[in-house]
Amino acid sequence: MNKTSRLRERFVEARSHSEKICEPLEIEDYVPQPMVDVSPPKWHLGHTTWFFEAFVLEPYSKGYQLYHDDFAYLFNSYYNNAGERVLRPNRGLMSRPPVREVMAYRAYVTEQMLDFLDKNPDQEVWDVIEIGINHEQQHQELLVYDIKYILGNQPTFPVYGEGFSLSQEVKKGFVKVEGGVYAIGASGDGFCYDNELGQHEVLIRPFEIAENLVTNGEFLEFIEARGYQDFNYWLSEGWDYINKENITAPLYWHKHKGEWYSYTLEGFEMLDLSLPVQHISFYEAYAYAEWKGMRLPTEFEWEVAGDKLNWGQLWEWTYSAYLPYPGFEKAPGALGEYNGKFMSNQNVLRGASVATPKGHSRKTYRNFFHSSCRWLFSGFRLVK
Amino acid sequence: MNKTSRLRERFVEARSHSEKICEPLEIEDYVPQPMVDVSPPKWHLGHTTWFFEAFVLEPYSKGYQLYHDDFAYLFNSYYNNAGERVLRPNRGLMSRPPVREVMAYRAYVTEQMLDFLDKNPDQEVWDVIEIGINHEQQHQELLVYDIKYILGNQPTFPVYGEGFSLSQEVKKGFVKVEGGVYAIGASGDGFCYDNELGQHEVLIRPFEIAENLVTNGEFLEFIEARGYQDFNYWLSEGWDYINKENITAPLYWHKHKGEWYSYTLEGFEMLDLSLPVQHISFYEAYAYAEWKGMRLPTEFEWEVAGDKLNWGQLWEWTYSAYLPYPGFEKAPGALGEYNGKFMSNQNVLRGASVATPKGHSRKTYRNFFHSSCRWLFSGFRLVK
Amino acid sequence: MNKTSRLRERFVEARSHSEKICEPLEIEDYVPQPMVDVSPPKWHLGHTTWFFEAFVLEPYSKGYQLYHDDFAYLFNSYYNNAGERVLRPNRGLMSRPPVREVMAYRAYVTEQMLDFLDKNPDQEVWDVIEIGINHEQQHQELLVYDIKYILGNQPTFPVYGEGFSLSQEVKKGFVKVEGGVYAIGASGDGFCYDNELGQHEVLIRPFEIAENLVTNGEFLEFIEARGYQDFNYWLSEGWDYINKENITAPLYWHKHKGEWYSYTLEGFEMLDLSLPVQHISFYEAYAYAEWKGMRLPTEFEWEVAGDKLNWGQLWEWTYSAYLPYPGFEKAPGALGEYNGKFMSNQNVLRGASVATPKGHSRKTYRNFFHSSCRWLFSGFRLVK
Amino acid sequence: MNKTSRLRERFVEARSHSEKICEPLEIEDYVPQPMVDVSPPKWHLGHTTWFFEAFVLEPYSKGYQLYHDDFAYLFNSYYNNAGERVLRPNRGLMSRPPVREVMAYRAYVTEQMLDFLDKNPDQEVWDVIEIGINHEQQHQELLVYDIKYILGNQPTFPVYGEGFSLSQEVKKGFVKVEGGVYAIGASGDGFCYDNELGQHEVLIRPFEIAENLVTNGEFLEFIEARGYQDFNYWLSEGWDYINKENITAPLYWHKHKGEWYSYTLEGFEMLDLSLPVQHISFYEAYAYAEWKGMRLPTEFEWEVAGDKLNWGQLWEWTYSAYLPYPGFEKAPGALGEYNGKFMSNQNVLRGASVATPKGHSRKTYRNFFHSSCRWLFSGFRLVK
Repeated sequence: MNKTSRLRERFVEARSHSEKICEPLEIEDYVPQPMVDVSPPKWHLGHTTWFFEAFVLEPYSKGYQLYHDDFAYLFNSYYNNAGERVLRPNRGLMSRPPVREVMAYRAYVTEQMLDFLDKNPDQEVWDVIEIGINHEQQHQELLVYDIKYILGNQPTFPVYGEGFSLSQEVKKGFVKVEGGVYAIGASGDGFCYDNELGQHEVLIRPFEIAENLVTNGEFLEFIEARGYQDFNYWLSEGWDYINKENITAPLYWHKHKGEWYSYTLEGFEMLDLSLPVQHISFYEAYAYAEWKGMRLPTEFEWEVAGDKLNWGQLWEWTYSAYLPYPGFEKAPGALGEYNGKFMSNQNVLRGASVATPKGHSRKTYRNFFHSSCRWLFSGFRLVK
Repeated sequence: MNKTSRLRERFVEARSHSEKICEPLEIEDYVPQPMVDVSPPKWHLGHTTWFFEAFVLEPYSKGYQLYHDDFAYLFNSYYNNAGERVLRPNRGLMSRPPVREVMAYRAYVTEQMLDFLDKNPDQEVWDVIEIGINHEQQHQELLVYDIKYILGNQPTFPVYGEGFSLSQEVKKGFVKVEGGVYAIGASGDGFCYDNELGQHEVLIRPFEIAENLVTNGEFLEFIEARGYQDFNYWLSEGWDYINKENITAPLYWHKHKGEWYSYTLEGFEMLDLSLPVQHISFYEAYAYAEWKGMRLPTEFEWEVAGDKLNWGQLWEWTYSAYLPYPGFEKAPGALGEYNGKFMSNQNVLRGASVATPKGHSRKTYRNFFHSSCRWLFSGFRLVK
Repeated sequence: MNKTSRLRERFVEARSHSEKICEPLEIEDYVPQPMVDVSPPKWHLGHTTWFFEAFVLEPYSKGYQLYHDDFAYLFNSYYNNAGERVLRPNRGLMSRPPVREVMAYRAYVTEQMLDFLDKNPDQEVWDVIEIGINHEQQHQELLVYDIKYILGNQPTFPVYGEGFSLSQEVKKGFVKVEGGVYAIGASGDGFCYDNELGQHEVLIRPFEIAENLVTNGEFLEFIEARGYQDFNYWLSEGWDYINKENITAPLYWHKHKGEWYSYTLEGFEMLDLSLPVQHISFYEAYAYAEWKGMRLPTEFEWEVAGDKLNWGQLWEWTYSAYLPYPGFEKAPGALGEYNGKFMSNQNVLRGASVATPKGHSRKTYRNFFHSSCRWLFSGFRLVK
Repeated sequence: MNKTSRLRERFVEARSHSEKICEPLEIEDYVPQPMVDVSPPKWHLGHTTWFFEAFVLEPYSKGYQLYHDDFAYLFNSYYNNAGERVLRPNRGLMSRPPVREVMAYRAYVTEQMLDFLDKNPDQEVWDVIEIGINHEQQHQELLVYDIKYILGNQPTFPVYGEGFSLSQEVKKGFVKVEGGVYAIGASGDGFCYDNELGQHEVLIRPFEIAENLVTNGEFLEFIEARGYQDFNYWLSEGWDYINKENITAPLYWHKHKGEWYSYTLEGFEMLDLSLPVQHISFYEAYAYAEWKGMRLPTEFEWEVAGDKLNWGQLWEWTYSAYLPYPGFEKAPGALGEYNGKFMSNQNVLRGASVATPKGHSRKTYRNFFHSSCRWLFSGFRLVK
């Protein structure tokens, strides 16, 4: 199978996977936006479709008819270069277009794309489509986070279903990594984002890194040792954050009649102490590490040790700021807004999670979130 | 037909009317809460049902089985005496229960109520049911306001349909009313709320009151005379309000290519200058009156003149604070929270609107909203 | 002594009294603005001076030289007609001009005024001066409130000194007042504000009003009966207010080692149970009355009963909204902004307080504050 | 002169220098806090004194009598381990203790310290005193920032006086720096903070760095090219920040009748285009660099190039997050809160400014502020 057939196949797969994720939802679940970071599922479905319309069909497919004039306004996320848009906090107010029309929009654009691909477009277009597929995959992961947040904030804790549960980690020790000069970043074979490029040498000092993620049981010890009440373990911002937000446990943990439960996509369940701790902020990961007398890895240490680790259940907080690699260059045009403009005051996470679509993870991948975010599928491991 | 059969009939009518109002909606329209004052249609449907469950079936119908244990929590509005509840600003986050389950809840409670009514309950119960019907009628009016607000904030301005449009007013002069002592308030024949009771004498000075509501065309003159830009016409709070919120015209007015349009439930339309001006705050009504060198009526003047006026298209702002009548007494128990606790810093509106359900208006009715509210069906007339 | 000499004398007295109030202060105390309602003493001293400059000297005294071009900008309060001004919440940031220069400004304007008065200006000017004196007297009362708030928020609770303490009330019963038609408002002999004018007849029903203000001891019973924790006694807004602000006792009350203390201008002292309760909001007064099964008087009842009451220690909350009397007319020009534009969503207080300057109280005086204000010298009496 | 005499001398010098900085102030200038980042000068004077009392005299000087029991509460900044404290945003409300008492407090503690030093304390104590002196020097720099902010926000733009003006930079080219492995951080001879320690090797790629800071004239070109209006140059957070705060020029710049002026400590002056641009946020520095097609240096590049640069007029923003060096260890006890807990979401600045006290700068010094801060003495240079 040649490269373009593979891409075509991956395009079809990506389009249908987004819809599959939403299958267990009620129509009503597609609408709300319970916090600014969360987008309504309806919006994700529209936005990933608009991406192909705005960046592939409109510029490259001659005579392409927009599905609807207003949809660019409704489904643009943050591309300033792509015009006006609904303000992010207002996405949950858009009851229209209804879900069935968003689905019709998806079908129309998918079909138009397939027709267009049959015409063997230039390599330049294939590159944009590759980005569009990866973009949709990123939104698939966000869809899972957002669905969990929408359902997990219903007083009735509804069940979503299977497919995103964690499993117990097996390994238990620490791996030693030698100091030295290592190559960091993607070499550019295979797809990667601009923020991974500029493979460069980094000097690493010897370190030991945990083979396993910190578990619920281990994190519970921190809680019981009143770690959330002792500022000595916390970054100053983190201390302010947990006190302002009244945070005393990971997101989705509930204490009910003296026992710990957690909301999962499979429902409201007793906390399983053997699973990796999930839904914590960088601040909480940092505090736990301080309490243990250890620390979090840098993103470079993580990348160097990556092959020796068992990773992929949860994104792992590193103590690295999200900054450009040496020689970083933004893509030209609207796609240049993809990564570079977020390079301030965020933390890098490495790895992948059970919500990451197949084929969307690699050792050099640099995910990034604000230090306070907890609704993503995040965990951490220690370094000493 | 005897009194109880009439009440039974009115109960059935009230229950089905709420559902009829929602018929033109998409499922998605039942969910959002675009501002704190607005409740999702789904919530109104559940809340009016819960009222009968909590105040009639639970206390009076032996062996009544709650439809669902969580629904009291979900659908209580502000009755502190009736337990915990979802916080008002979070109503738009509840995608569950889905609409079909709310409808099933409605059907169940309506049926249980009818069975119960067959058992000829005491007068005390009929009194609560009377309040329950009036309560549902009040929410029917709010439903219309809220649906208009939800749809009117969609970038696509969808059409709802007919049934709530205004018509041109015919009369044009001022009516003279003699000074003297007048009886104000309800005498207690026929249903009325506690806040109308305590009929009492009030001394009124002679005044002249407009037979017609101020029109769009007249209000436009105020706009064109830059009335929104001259603080001399405004209450201090009103001036701060319009400047903070960037208000320069009534709600739902849009200037498009030099012409004025307004969003109505029948769609986005050219502004009809001959219709009464709608969706203005008390502050705007006050400023217009100042600009005209006239004033708004007090609620007592309105009630005295009522029979000579053509009213019922729009609720009319008065320059009266919502305060208790002499000798006002709250009902005992949770229903005592119905009216009295809101008697501070609100304005009385008198009359009724095209969204007021049949049988829910009378000359002594005291409606009340904060001076800044604009999403209700409000207008005003002048006094000189 | 003729009328103008008396006014001249009162002018001199008013000017020196403001300065006398500030005598016990440290220079540093003139600067802070611990909440928006409070103005720095320095600002009051400048603002009352600017009033004479802007409304008397500039318009009427030929060739008058402004003391400083910037002072109108610094010391205008809310007169939109008198130009731009420092925004209210920023008054506490103005360390300049220093106090000694504000005092020099005061001396200059006072002297210029006296020179000008020697020239026997027209009656129109005397009228404005009369307002200017009354205006300065109002600020003298605010000065006392604001000084108490500034000092009472110092962790060290500094002593201001004597002059504003309350005394025990003697009478203890209720006075009966007959129903009937009473004349309300000022007849216009002697100075009064525009908001008191339009003497008019009001129909009053018979009532009984307490001869004494509610005392600390009585209010403490409400606290101990957990009145602050039972929403049944509260207006809805009041309940939200005390919960948001964590209010569980009057302002300046402190519980220390199981005993109640209060901060007074004479220092931090054991609470004297026999004195009138002070520094409560309208909401708290309302809740206490509900708990007692009584109510607050209307402003009309208060005025009718006034001569039979012992009043003047504290401003007394009434359950009347601050609204225009029939036929109310604003003064022309900037002074028209004095009263009318505040007639929305405020409560009337009647009487006077120990901080009210001599000669600045009368039975028809209508003071007004928002229902939540507590830093003023407020108390209340009951009606049954 | 031996080490302890030198330290004693530096102690005396540091104590008197703080007071010297405040000499041109009016008493009123010591009080306000015009934004949360700014502390009143009075507070700085008390806080630096409290540091010696809390960390030297109390623990080490037998029988030491506190000057005042409340002062720890008033003058603790953020040392959670040192007990309760006045909340940061409320520092500007403390008119008491007055300045003369803060000065008396300073004199008392300075004298007690000198007596104590005469008793030849252990090395451990000298180490804390060394930190206390450096701490006071840091506050001296903040004092200058804060005084400028307090005075620069007076509508009258008062003159402070000389001592902190910038001079024209002479060099104009770019210096080439070879790639290679360089030692970064302090080796520990001489005083340094814990955040500089852990000298370690870093791999640097070749770069060229500007010998001069960007000037007002150069920055004005960016403004005139509408750089503040084009989101393509901005980090996403930066774009939100300047739009929310309406920022269109560096802090203290004012356009008056078509000409640019700036407020300086010597008064309101025409903008001198030849001087380095000052009072810009990291976001503005970043945007300027993007517009120029260049970038900001990392803190490592800066340190490597340091000896070849002319630095010391303004702190220079780097594109490095403030993170721990490898092997970073916090000091034990309350002093461990000095640096480590701020290591998240801040940018490193390198160099020094005209407000940095003599003896308080070195090439390895890591200053840090949030990306949005503008009131510090900040500038930047470019790298290509």
